[in-house]
Amino acid sequence: MFELLATDSNSKARRGRLTTAHGVIETPAFMPVGTQGTVKAVSPRELRELRAQIILGNTYHLFVRPGLDAVRHFGGLHRFMNWDGPILTDSGGYQIFSLARIRKITEEGAHFQNHLDGTPTFISPEIAIEIQATLGGDVAMVLDECPPWPCEREYAARSLELTTRWAERSKVAFENRKSKIENCPQLLFGIVQGATFPELRREAAEAIVAIGFDGYAIGGVSVGEPEPEMMAAVEKSEPFLPNDKPRYAMGLGTPPQMLELIARGIDLFDCVLPTRLARNGTAFTASGTLNLKNAEFALDKSPIEEGCACPACREFIRGYIRHLVKAEEILGLRLITLHNLHFYLELMKRARAAIETKTFDRFRRDFVAGYGQTTDSHR
Amino acid sequence: MFELLATDSNSKARRGRLTTAHGVIETPAFMPVGTQGTVKAVSPRELRELRAQIILGNTYHLFVRPGLDAVRHFGGLHRFMNWDGPILTDSGGYQIFSLARIRKITEEGAHFQNHLDGTPTFISPEIAIEIQATLGGDVAMVLDECPPWPCEREYAARSLELTTRWAERSKVAFENRKSKIENCPQLLFGIVQGATFPELRREAAEAIVAIGFDGYAIGGVSVGEPEPEMMAAVEKSEPFLPNDKPRYAMGLGTPPQMLELIARGIDLFDCVLPTRLARNGTAFTASGTLNLKNAEFALDKSPIEEGCACPACREFIRGYIRHLVKAEEILGLRLITLHNLHFYLELMKRARAAIETKTFDRFRRDFVAGYGQTTDSHR
Repeated sequence: MFELLATDSNSKARRGRLTTAHGVIETPAFMPVGTQGTVKAVSPRELRELRAQIILGNTYHLFVRPGLDAVRHFGGLHRFMNWDGPILTDSGGYQIFSLARIRKITEEGAHFQNHLDGTPTFISPEIAIEIQATLGGDVAMVLDECPPWPCEREYAARSLELTTRWAERSKVAFENRKSKIENCPQLLFGIVQGATFPELRREAAEAIVAIGFDGYAIGGVSVGEPEPEMMAAVEKSEPFLPNDKPRYAMGLGTPPQMLELIARGIDLFDCVLPTRLARNGTAFTASGTLNLKNAEFALDKSPIEEGCACPACREFIRGYIRHLVKAEEILGLRLITLHNLHFYLELMKRARAAIETKTFDRFRRDFVAGYGQTTDSHR
Repeated sequence: MFELLATDSNSKARRGRLTTAHGVIETPAFMPVGTQGTVKAVSPRELRELRAQIILGNTYHLFVRPGLDAVRHFGGLHRFMNWDGPILTDSGGYQIFSLARIRKITEEGAHFQNHLDGTPTFISPEIAIEIQATLGGDVAMVLDECPPWPCEREYAARSLELTTRWAERSKVAFENRKSKIENCPQLLFGIVQGATFPELRREAAEAIVAIGFDGYAIGGVSVGEPEPEMMAAVEKSEPFLPNDKPRYAMGLGTPPQMLELIARGIDLFDCVLPTRLARNGTAFTASGTLNLKNAEFALDKSPIEEGCACPACREFIRGYIRHLVKAEEILGLRLITLHNLHFYLELMKRARAAIETKTFDRFRRDFVAGYGQTTDSHR
């Protein structure tokens, strides 16, 4: 399923290849976020043209609307949204804890009311596996509890133990389901929690690895913690993850953060920044973000970024895109979304090439130095 | 500039060809409305793929934002928005009278405050010509006063006379400008007003035709009047328009209305219905409009319209598009917009073919009978 093609000599950067039922993902890779069955403002055709290798679907959102019966009726998420490339579905845990109204977390699972109409719902690790089987993504995630930041050590430790027991149950449910279905190609990733406590990160990583998954995610990052804490959470988890499985940093990050995390051994990323900031008029460039609403761009005849081959930069100038954003025209946020996704995907492509040619360390340092803006973390 | 290629024997339907600086328009033709320098939610590339032959730009909106200096700086509207096909610009009159806060209408022109920031502005027929020259559309329109519906005969008569004097000044200003510029390929259309009074429509048509324009629009329709009044306004104007010039019904209409107007000798249409209704979840089909928000479509695996070759129907099902609309995802209104524009453009294509093959009358009757919904007029 996962092949390690090359490694960097100056860092832990890895060049890999993850094979899924709907296609191959060259890593490091960025996954555009398709929250509600669509990457916001973008069509599947545009995603293919951007050469997106895999997208993320949010289980919680799809579970709430259109609901599992609808997705099942339509033959799964791929057919529903007409995307035939790989999909990773999250477990829904993060959104249950951040969006829904939690009623009670028990050993058994999470009782909550959804944020749309307040319907009382219960999700267990086993149910999360079933839901993701219905969605039919290529990679499923175990249900975990994602502690907030900051968080007491004692809470983090108890939460981690619950997450580990849930991971065991997820694995059993997943294997049980697989044993009943011929040719079930879905992969299951475990999630390492442990908040900002190094020894808890290690404990979590060892416990999750002992259960055995097709890949390992580092969760509990991008929850508001300062960047050094985020980097530390990855650094303290990564050494205990097997080399022959992909590693995924959930909900991250800014362009420099992604390169720093690749240097720390991460292979997969997902982040709403390129799409969310685009809808606010903000574009990513090699020298940092541009707010295209700014008056300085009103008469600007240059593309968002000189030399960029994205559909927005090939055809449109900053002054026009600024006009669209100011006039609240949908085409404006569409164009910036395409540019930003292209920027993220292209950055991964360049990182892959740099690892292959043993120049990743220099590439990372040059990019981070040139980016020149304060980094921040968002999910 | 305008060639009459074929006429219908059972109606006044005409098959024509209008040649402009940016390309040829086969008529009857529908012009998608690009209010603020973009056809809402659609990219120029998509418009080309839909085979839109010409789009409309709203002078008032572009004048208010980004402003003439910006459009001039960018080399005109075509380059600003990266659309290299024909553009027709309206004079701004309709929006001045419907959107702006009118301060005073004098013989000289209209004093108003724009709807965005209240900047006091004055537009005369001569200024409208200058503005449209700066925008650089292929077809410009004279400034007119568009009387409301209903309206007293006396008001309509006085308004018509002002519109006629403005048309004369527009022609002088236009010719004056042309004489100073080599190779100025812009066309100028006059506008027939006269509200719902047959003898005023005739008077207006004769006066405007006497001035002499490259084409003739019928204005003062689609202002809230019942459909029979709208049809009558066209019927009472059309006989006095020359055969060898294109005729344009402003701000119209529904699909059956367009066919009825083609049968009454109209060649050009513009209407926000396909784009505006799309943003509300409403799709056009041969049997009428569908509100895709309706629960009946939740599990529907068929395309918006069976057999439709638009980008939405080729790839997506009603159930998915309904989900997108309900979840307020931009892709939903994008897909319906593409479908609706395709529907309007395809209807014109079929009308052109029917006129050529002498089957227009039957085509119109069959379509109108099948459409089976109450028609309404919108601008």
